[in-house]
Amino acid sequence: MSQEKLTPLEELGEFGLIEKINQLFPIKNDKIVLGIGDDSAAFQSNEELTLTSTDMYVEGVHFDLVYTPLQHLGYKVVAATVSDIYAMNGTPQYLTLGIAMSSKFTVEAIDALLTGMRAACTYYNVELIGGDTTTSRMGLCLSLTAIGKVAKDKMVTRAGAKNGDVLVVTGDLGGAYMGLQILEREKRVYLETPDMQPELQGHEYILKRQLRPEARKDVIDQLAELNIVPNAMIDVSDGLGSEAMHIAKASGLGCKLFEDKFPIDEATSELALSFRMDPSICVLSGGEDYELLMAVSIDDYEKLKNLPDFTAVGHTTGALDTFTYITHGGNEIKLDEVSGFKHF
Amino acid sequence: MSQEKLTPLEELGEFGLIEKINQLFPIKNDKIVLGIGDDSAAFQSNEELTLTSTDMYVEGVHFDLVYTPLQHLGYKVVAATVSDIYAMNGTPQYLTLGIAMSSKFTVEAIDALLTGMRAACTYYNVELIGGDTTTSRMGLCLSLTAIGKVAKDKMVTRAGAKNGDVLVVTGDLGGAYMGLQILEREKRVYLETPDMQPELQGHEYILKRQLRPEARKDVIDQLAELNIVPNAMIDVSDGLGSEAMHIAKASGLGCKLFEDKFPIDEATSELALSFRMDPSICVLSGGEDYELLMAVSIDDYEKLKNLPDFTAVGHTTGALDTFTYITHGGNEIKLDEVSGFKHF
Repeated sequence: MSQEKLTPLEELGEFGLIEKINQLFPIKNDKIVLGIGDDSAAFQSNEELTLTSTDMYVEGVHFDLVYTPLQHLGYKVVAATVSDIYAMNGTPQYLTLGIAMSSKFTVEAIDALLTGMRAACTYYNVELIGGDTTTSRMGLCLSLTAIGKVAKDKMVTRAGAKNGDVLVVTGDLGGAYMGLQILEREKRVYLETPDMQPELQGHEYILKRQLRPEARKDVIDQLAELNIVPNAMIDVSDGLGSEAMHIAKASGLGCKLFEDKFPIDEATSELALSFRMDPSICVLSGGEDYELLMAVSIDDYEKLKNLPDFTAVGHTTGALDTFTYITHGGNEIKLDEVSGFKHF
Repeated sequence: MSQEKLTPLEELGEFGLIEKINQLFPIKNDKIVLGIGDDSAAFQSNEELTLTSTDMYVEGVHFDLVYTPLQHLGYKVVAATVSDIYAMNGTPQYLTLGIAMSSKFTVEAIDALLTGMRAACTYYNVELIGGDTTTSRMGLCLSLTAIGKVAKDKMVTRAGAKNGDVLVVTGDLGGAYMGLQILEREKRVYLETPDMQPELQGHEYILKRQLRPEARKDVIDQLAELNIVPNAMIDVSDGLGSEAMHIAKASGLGCKLFEDKFPIDEATSELALSFRMDPSICVLSGGEDYELLMAVSIDDYEKLKNLPDFTAVGHTTGALDTFTYITHGGNEIKLDEVSGFKHF
């Protein structure tokens, strides 16, 4: 633990905190007529569709402050929230932020959290326009609402997949989940033997996947350049299995995935095996990778298939309510037996 | 305590909960292209300004489930959130909802909460378009973002008051705070003597002010009919004193209030005295009344002054950073010595 002097939030006060947020997030977009500080924010709209998406992040459920640097947490919650706007093929523009936290939280801690949020807002080009700050007797709870836009004919929902579409996923999967396993292991070691240094070296990639993931803004830009509008799309927040089922169900179809095709980084794979876990199950059920899963026509897939960021992992089928994956050994397994994150 | 069989939330599951929310809040507005269930909601915008406002409500801070019926709580959080949109002279249209709650919460409890929210959404004509549901190890935490609209030349911020404007407040003040005192007293009695029946009779008005307040949609309608656009406006969520200071500070002015003019319901006044509290201090610092405080020109005040819903309580002054009230006895007291709700 550091010995530097820390300042309890009580000393700053609510208005001091709002002032700090105002300074860290100056308004630049001239469509924003009114930012933080009044009853509402106000912005000029236009003829495109407006998109909104809300995410909550609760201490002890979504993050553990024992091993989560607050600056990374700030970055991650913004990235995870705007990821939902990208998953509509949209562009995030504005963000509102609710923070509930104990008054024993330090000002230095809130600075780190906000600094991470600001870095993400800068990278994704979104502006914080309002929110609410309050105390909590129950740890840190963050609520973010992203507002964005999309042209009417470019919006991509979960529901538009056609029978025989290729299911394409970006990046690699399972890394964020294995990052979590490492952090949980080191936490257990730390609690038992506080003097022990955590063994995190060599795991930089998967730790970054867990602690400071990126939303695939770059993928949305690539799709636009290639003039591709996927038939359906979703971000991979709960694992490939449940996301593929979401697209198939919403589109009135079935789906079939192929374990052979799962994009798994070597570090993820090796670590999973060292934990005696099946890397493919980490892909199907792991979650928090914030990659994009899309259903595209065969023609569009031809334009994507040689690009390094895209991997075909399966296809939709006409077999309504049948969601399966084919194992390395050729067996067909039901996805709902292995997939999904249970919140309650 | 009721003996009926209750269902743990675990049995419903996250998707069951989302389905329930979907059923309770069917989409009616044809501007909403996409409601709950995809990554984002999507709605058609227009040339007016879009307003957004976010509020968080945390168990143990903003409400106590010992004495708060969940149906009322659901109604109240929606009313309190849209109140910020009315305070801009706007019309709320859409709502997003984040719920974090323990999996031990019952399905009957969530039904009551959502039913109250739905009643408020119906009354204020807003539609729930999305959100997030998650578990919490730390009690119930609700985050609501209201989105609304206002014509560019009709938006009212805190910052437009002119020197010599009349400060006009709607309804009566202090009631919600006294309602809270009654409920806290009965809770203490209940904890000491569980068999005792709570003494709530005769306090219906102030209990309603605390448990099921209304946002002043009707006042916004009246202002429009009278063709009045206030120079500045704010909703009274933290007490008259701090709200008057917010308007004065944001407008680069001072303000002076008059205790003689404070609108206090007889029930509030009597109860405050029985608690040995000063009713005027309840008005200045009590909060949660969700009335509107506005700064209007003398000419506009002439149109309002005979209407029962509006009371002049003071005026703005040219004395920058001087915020006072004149007591019954004629003394001038600084508002920042008596006002405001300290969150941290």
